[in-house]
Amino acid sequence: MRTLGWLMALLAMLTPFACPQQASLYLMPMPASVERASGQLAITPSFAVAITGNTEVRLQRAVEIFLDHLRRQTGMPPVEVSLTDASKAALVIRTEGISKEVQDVDEDESYTLDVTSAVAKLSAPNTLGAMRGLETFLQLITVTPEGFAVPAVAIKDQPRFPWRGLMIDTSRHFIPLPVLKRNLDGMAAVKMNVFHWHLSDNQGFRIESKKFPNLQQMGSDDLYYTQDEARELIAYARDRGIRVVPEFDMPGHSTAWFVGYPELASKPGSFAIERSWGVFDAAMDPTQERTYRFLDEFIGEMAKLFPDAYFHIGGDEVNGKQWDANPKIQDFMHLHAIKNNQELQAYFNRRVQEIVRRHGKTMVGWDEILQPDLPKNIVVQSWRGQASLAEAAKEQYRGLLSYGYYLDLMWPAAQHYLIDPLSDGAANLTPTETSRILGGEACMWTEFASAENIDSRIWPRAAAIAERMWSPANVRDVPSMYARLDRLRFRLEWLGLTHDSAYVPMLRRIAGSDDISGLRVLADLLEPVKNYDRAEQEEAATSITPLNRLVDAVRPESQTGREFSAMVDAILANKATPEMKEQVRSLLLLWRDNHEKLEGLEAKSFLMKDVVPISQNLSGLAAAGLQALDYLSGGRTAPESWTNAALALADEAKKPQSQVLLTVAPAIERLIRAAAGTGIAGSPK
Amino acid sequence: MRTLGWLMALLAMLTPFACPQQASLYLMPMPASVERASGQLAITPSFAVAITGNTEVRLQRAVEIFLDHLRRQTGMPPVEVSLTDASKAALVIRTEGISKEVQDVDEDESYTLDVTSAVAKLSAPNTLGAMRGLETFLQLITVTPEGFAVPAVAIKDQPRFPWRGLMIDTSRHFIPLPVLKRNLDGMAAVKMNVFHWHLSDNQGFRIESKKFPNLQQMGSDDLYYTQDEARELIAYARDRGIRVVPEFDMPGHSTAWFVGYPELASKPGSFAIERSWGVFDAAMDPTQERTYRFLDEFIGEMAKLFPDAYFHIGGDEVNGKQWDANPKIQDFMHLHAIKNNQELQAYFNRRVQEIVRRHGKTMVGWDEILQPDLPKNIVVQSWRGQASLAEAAKEQYRGLLSYGYYLDLMWPAAQHYLIDPLSDGAANLTPTETSRILGGEACMWTEFASAENIDSRIWPRAAAIAERMWSPANVRDVPSMYARLDRLRFRLEWLGLTHDSAYVPMLRRIAGSDDISGLRVLADLLEPVKNYDRAEQEEAATSITPLNRLVDAVRPESQTGREFSAMVDAILANKATPEMKEQVRSLLLLWRDNHEKLEGLEAKSFLMKDVVPISQNLSGLAAAGLQALDYLSGGRTAPESWTNAALALADEAKKPQSQVLLTVAPAIERLIRAAAGTGIAGSPK
Repeated sequence: MRTLGWLMALLAMLTPFACPQQASLYLMPMPASVERASGQLAITPSFAVAITGNTEVRLQRAVEIFLDHLRRQTGMPPVEVSLTDASKAALVIRTEGISKEVQDVDEDESYTLDVTSAVAKLSAPNTLGAMRGLETFLQLITVTPEGFAVPAVAIKDQPRFPWRGLMIDTSRHFIPLPVLKRNLDGMAAVKMNVFHWHLSDNQGFRIESKKFPNLQQMGSDDLYYTQDEARELIAYARDRGIRVVPEFDMPGHSTAWFVGYPELASKPGSFAIERSWGVFDAAMDPTQERTYRFLDEFIGEMAKLFPDAYFHIGGDEVNGKQWDANPKIQDFMHLHAIKNNQELQAYFNRRVQEIVRRHGKTMVGWDEILQPDLPKNIVVQSWRGQASLAEAAKEQYRGLLSYGYYLDLMWPAAQHYLIDPLSDGAANLTPTETSRILGGEACMWTEFASAENIDSRIWPRAAAIAERMWSPANVRDVPSMYARLDRLRFRLEWLGLTHDSAYVPMLRRIAGSDDISGLRVLADLLEPVKNYDRAEQEEAATSITPLNRLVDAVRPESQTGREFSAMVDAILANKATPEMKEQVRSLLLLWRDNHEKLEGLEAKSFLMKDVVPISQNLSGLAAAGLQALDYLSGGRTAPESWTNAALALADEAKKPQSQVLLTVAPAIERLIRAAAGTGIAGSPK
Repeated sequence: MRTLGWLMALLAMLTPFACPQQASLYLMPMPASVERASGQLAITPSFAVAITGNTEVRLQRAVEIFLDHLRRQTGMPPVEVSLTDASKAALVIRTEGISKEVQDVDEDESYTLDVTSAVAKLSAPNTLGAMRGLETFLQLITVTPEGFAVPAVAIKDQPRFPWRGLMIDTSRHFIPLPVLKRNLDGMAAVKMNVFHWHLSDNQGFRIESKKFPNLQQMGSDDLYYTQDEARELIAYARDRGIRVVPEFDMPGHSTAWFVGYPELASKPGSFAIERSWGVFDAAMDPTQERTYRFLDEFIGEMAKLFPDAYFHIGGDEVNGKQWDANPKIQDFMHLHAIKNNQELQAYFNRRVQEIVRRHGKTMVGWDEILQPDLPKNIVVQSWRGQASLAEAAKEQYRGLLSYGYYLDLMWPAAQHYLIDPLSDGAANLTPTETSRILGGEACMWTEFASAENIDSRIWPRAAAIAERMWSPANVRDVPSMYARLDRLRFRLEWLGLTHDSAYVPMLRRIAGSDDISGLRVLADLLEPVKNYDRAEQEEAATSITPLNRLVDAVRPESQTGREFSAMVDAILANKATPEMKEQVRSLLLLWRDNHEKLEGLEAKSFLMKDVVPISQNLSGLAAAGLQALDYLSGGRTAPESWTNAALALADEAKKPQSQVLLTVAPAIERLIRAAAGTGIAGSPK
C-alpha cells in the first residue's frame, strides 16, 4: 500500500499546478529557471566526465563523489568511468575560478546546466557552483524504456539565501560520525551548505579538547568525537560544499562542562552529566575572570580546529537561578550596576564576543544574545520567529531563521515548507535590511532521536526546508513539493541514509518476529505526537530511556495518511474517480481486518503493548468508515444514533495513544460527518 | 506475505523434529549441548558485564563489541552499560588464559554458558572461547511480554572443526572495506573463524605492494586496499576471533600481475586487465629465476603484512597453453625431464612452497597443488569433493572442503547444509586421517556480485555452512535449520549487513518508482538460475556489465517459494489444515492478479523488460493452480485437455527467463498433476 501513480494525477487535478513540466523532472530544490527541450542524453556504463577551464583537487574530488553517487543510483560498475578529455565526455564541466581556501558565506553558488541529446555542459564561476550543478544532474537521471537518461534541459540556477543549514544536536544523544557523514550527503543532495554542529549541552560534551581533557573525559560518557574525527568530518563536508559551524552553548546549557571543571559554574559543588530533558539551572559564572581565561584558551583551541569564519556560542535559555542564588555574583552585579540577569548575560556575551573576535571568528548565537552594545557583525539565529529576525535586521544585525524549522517537533513537511524567512514579521523590510537575513537552518534536537532513527526524523522533511532556502520565493506549491519529495525520499537511500530502511528492523524488534505485515499496515498510518507533547506526556524520559518503542519507529509524516486524506477529500468534493472510491474502500477493509493479524503478537512482546489499543481503534473506526461510505454511496443520511456512536469512535481514535497519532482518524471522521449530512464543517482539521 | 508463525508448526508436524526445546532457542550454529531450565534473566538498560579471572585488551574489546550489538538488537541506549565488578553484573565472564599473539588454528574455542534468572556466567579457557559464548548469549536474547530476556539455560559448546571459513573474491568485483567489515561481523555471529581474502586474479590485483607498486597501480583500475586498510581489516577480524588468510592466485589466474610486470608471464608482450569471465591462458613463467626472485620479495612483503601462519597461493586452473606455446619453457622442461604441464606446475609449487616456508608460513592451495614431493604440512582446499580431500588426508596432507559450499552457485541453504566434509568419499577414514580434515570454507566468487548485492549472496545461507562446521555431525534437521535461519536473517541486519535492506532499493531502481508492490510480490518468488547457468546464458557479461537487473536483485533462495511448496505438499499429502488451504488459495489469487499492477511500469523502465514475461507466466500458472485446487476440493479429476494446457503453462513457467527461475512453478505443477489424478510422481523436483 504505497504511493500510487494515479495519486499524482489526483493531486494535480485538485490543485492547479503552475509548472507541470518542471515537476515531471522531480528536481528538489527547484532551480531558479528550467527550460525543457526535446530529446535526452543517454547515461551508459561508459559515461565519462571532462573538467575544462580552471580546476582544482576539490573539483576532481567532487566529480569522484558524483560518479560514486551515479553508480549507486544506476547500479553501473565502478570501472571505466573517469575524468577524461572533452571530446569523449558526456558531461563537460567548465569552471572559471577555484574555491576559497575556507568556504565563505558569500561565495557564488550559481551554475548553468545545458543538456542536449549529445552532451551535457555544466558551467559555474567556481567549484562550489559546479557541485550544486552536479547534484541537479544526478536528480535529472531517470530510467527510461531505452536505459538511463537525462532529458534535454537548460537550467540557470542560484540560491535565494546564502546560508542553508542543518543543525544536529549531538549532545542529548550522541550521533556517531558515520551517521553525520551520511547526513552530510543528504544535505549536499538538496544543496544545503552549513552543518551546524551542536557539540555541547547539559547532557554531554562531545568534542575532544587537548587543553581541557576533562571536558570530554568526564562530560561525555566516553561518547565524543576526537579532533581527528572532527577534521575528517570537516574535510568530508568541504568535499560536498558544506561549511561546518561548531556550537558550544554558553553560559547556560553547560552542565557537561562542569563535571570536569566545576570552577566554571555559578554554584559551588560537584556536577554530574544531566540525564533528564528540559531547561536547567546550571550556568557559567560570568563574574569571575577565570571563566574568561578558560574560554579564551578553549575557544582558541576550537577556533584552530574549525576553519569556518563563524563560531556559535549558543546563549539560549539561561534561567538565572544560580546567578540569583550566588552572593558573589549579586555583589558583582551591584558593583557594576548590572540591573538584571539579562544585562548580566549581555555582559557575558560582550566578553565572549571579544574572545571569539580575537581568535578571528564572527560570533553566532540564538535570539537571546541580541542585547545592546554587541558589535553589528554578529549573527543572530532566531527560534522565536520572523519578527525577532526583522528586529535584528533593523538594528543592522544579520540573522538566520530557525523558527518553524524544528524537525523534532514532527510537523508535516508542508508546514515547514510554507514558512518563509521573509514573510510575516519580516515581510516589510527594506532591501538593505532584507539582505541581512542570510537564510535559515533546520534544527534536529535529539531528546527523542538516536543513531538508529535520526535519519527518519531529518529526511525527507529537511528537503522541504532546503527548497525554501534555495528556490525562488514563489516556488511554494505543496502538491508539487510532495510529488518531488516522495521521489527524493528513495533517492536519498542510495546515499546511505536509512530513513526508510531502518523502519523494518525497528518494527521487527517490536514484534519480536520478521512477520510484521500487520504491524506495518498500522505503523504506516501513525505519526509521533507533535510539538512538545511527547516531552510533556513522557516526563520521566531521560537519555537512558531506550528509544525502541512504536513512537520511535513510526515516521514523522505518514505518506499513506496524507494520500488517504486527499482521496477522502476528493470523494467529499465529488471529484473522486471510481478508482479512488474503490481504493478508499479497499484501504478501510484492510484496516478493519488488520487487527486480527496482530493478535498473536501482543502476548509475545512487551513492545507490542503500545500497539494493541491503537490497532483496535483503527479497526473499529475503519468499520465505521465503511458504513459511512455505504450511506454516502446509497445517498442515505446516517441515523443519529449511528452517527453519535461513530463520532465517539473517531474522538477516541484521534486521541494520542502512547505518544502516537492515528493520522487517518480525521479523514474517516469527515466521512462519518458527511454520511450524517453535517458536511465537513464540524471537522476543523 | 512473509513468514507465517503457523508455518513453523506445519514444518514441525511434517518432519519429526529431534530437539524442539533447542529449536525454540533459535541458536545457530546449534551448540554441542543445551539444557533448558525454568526462568529467565532480564536484560535491562542497566545491564552490566564483569570480567573476572584472566583478562586482556582483546577480551575487553570483545565485550565492547558485544555491548554494541546488544544495543543494536534491543534499542537500548549507549550509556551506563559498562564493564563492572562481578557483584553488580548480569553477565560474569571468566577466562583462564589469554589469547595467542596470532590466532592459531588449534586454539581452544570452547565455552560454557550458564544462565539463571539471577545471573549469566560465561566461562572459557581463553578469550576466543569467550567471544563464541558472547555470540551465543546475543542469540539467546528475545523479546518477552515483560521485556528483553535470556532464558535460563546451561550450554556446553565447542566446534567440530577448527577451520570454518568464508572466502570472498575481491578481484572479479572489488568489494569495499566497509562491506568486508560487515561480513566479518556476520561471520563472527555464526562463529566462523577464517576470512580467506582472494586478493588477486585475472580481473584485478587488489592489495598495495610497496615493493612492486605497478601491481596495484596498473592492475586494479585504482580499486585496491592499501596496506593500512589491510591492517585495519586484520585488526577488525582479530577483535572478532577471525583469522585472515590472504590468497594470491598463481601461476594461473594472474593476468592482473602482468599488466605492471609483463616479464613474469609465459608469453611475451603486454597485458591488459581481463574484463571477461572464465579460465584464461595467462600464467607465470615457472622456468625463469626472476619469477622466483620476484615472488620471494613479494611474498616476503605480504608475509609481514598478514600475520596469520597460513598463506594461500591459489594454484588452480592452469590451462598450460602459454607454456605449450613458449619454446624456452619447452626447452626447460626437456632439459629437466619434466614430462607435462602438471609436473611443471608441481615444480613451480615446490619452489613457491620453499619461498612461503622461508617467510615463516604454511602454504595453502586448491586441489591442483597436490602433487608428489610437496612437504606434508601444506593444506589442500578442495573444490573437487570429499574423495579428493580423503585422498589428501591419506597421504598425510591436511585439507579443507569447499566443494558444495560455493555460494555463487545459488543453491538453497539446505543443499549446502547437508554436505559434510566427512561424508561420501571421506566417510571411511581412520581417526588420524579424519583429524587432518580441518574443516571447510564457504566461497563467494564475484562474477555476478557487487558491493551492492554481495551480502544477499552470502547471507543468510553461509550460516547453514557455518553450522555444518561448528555443530555436531548429527545436527542436520532441515526444517529446524530453516526455522533458525529465518530468525538469524533479520538478526544479521542489525550488524549492518544489507542482505534484506538492499533489496527494496534495487527493486525501486528497476521500477523507476517507489511503488514496487507488484514487482515485489513477483520478485519474492524468484531466484537466479543455479550452478554456472548464468555464465553460460550471459556469455557477453564482463566486469563492466551493470549488475542492476532483476536477476541481481532477487535472492538466491525464495522464502515464500519454499513455504508455498511445503504447504502444497501438505495439501497433496492430506495433512493440510484449513488455514493452509486458505493460504495457498489466497497466494494463488494474489499471483493471478498481480500482473495488472505491473502493466503500467513496463513502458517506463528498460529494466522492467526482464520482468514482464515472468509476471505473465506467474499469472497464467496461478490461474491454473486455482482451477487445480477446485478440482481437488471438488473431488473431480481434471479433463485431459485442461491438464495438457495447464502442464504446458507449467513447462513454460519452469524455464529460466532472463536468468531467473520462478520457484513456485514446480509446486503448482504438482497441484495440476494431482488434479489430473496422476499424483505427484510426474514431478521429480
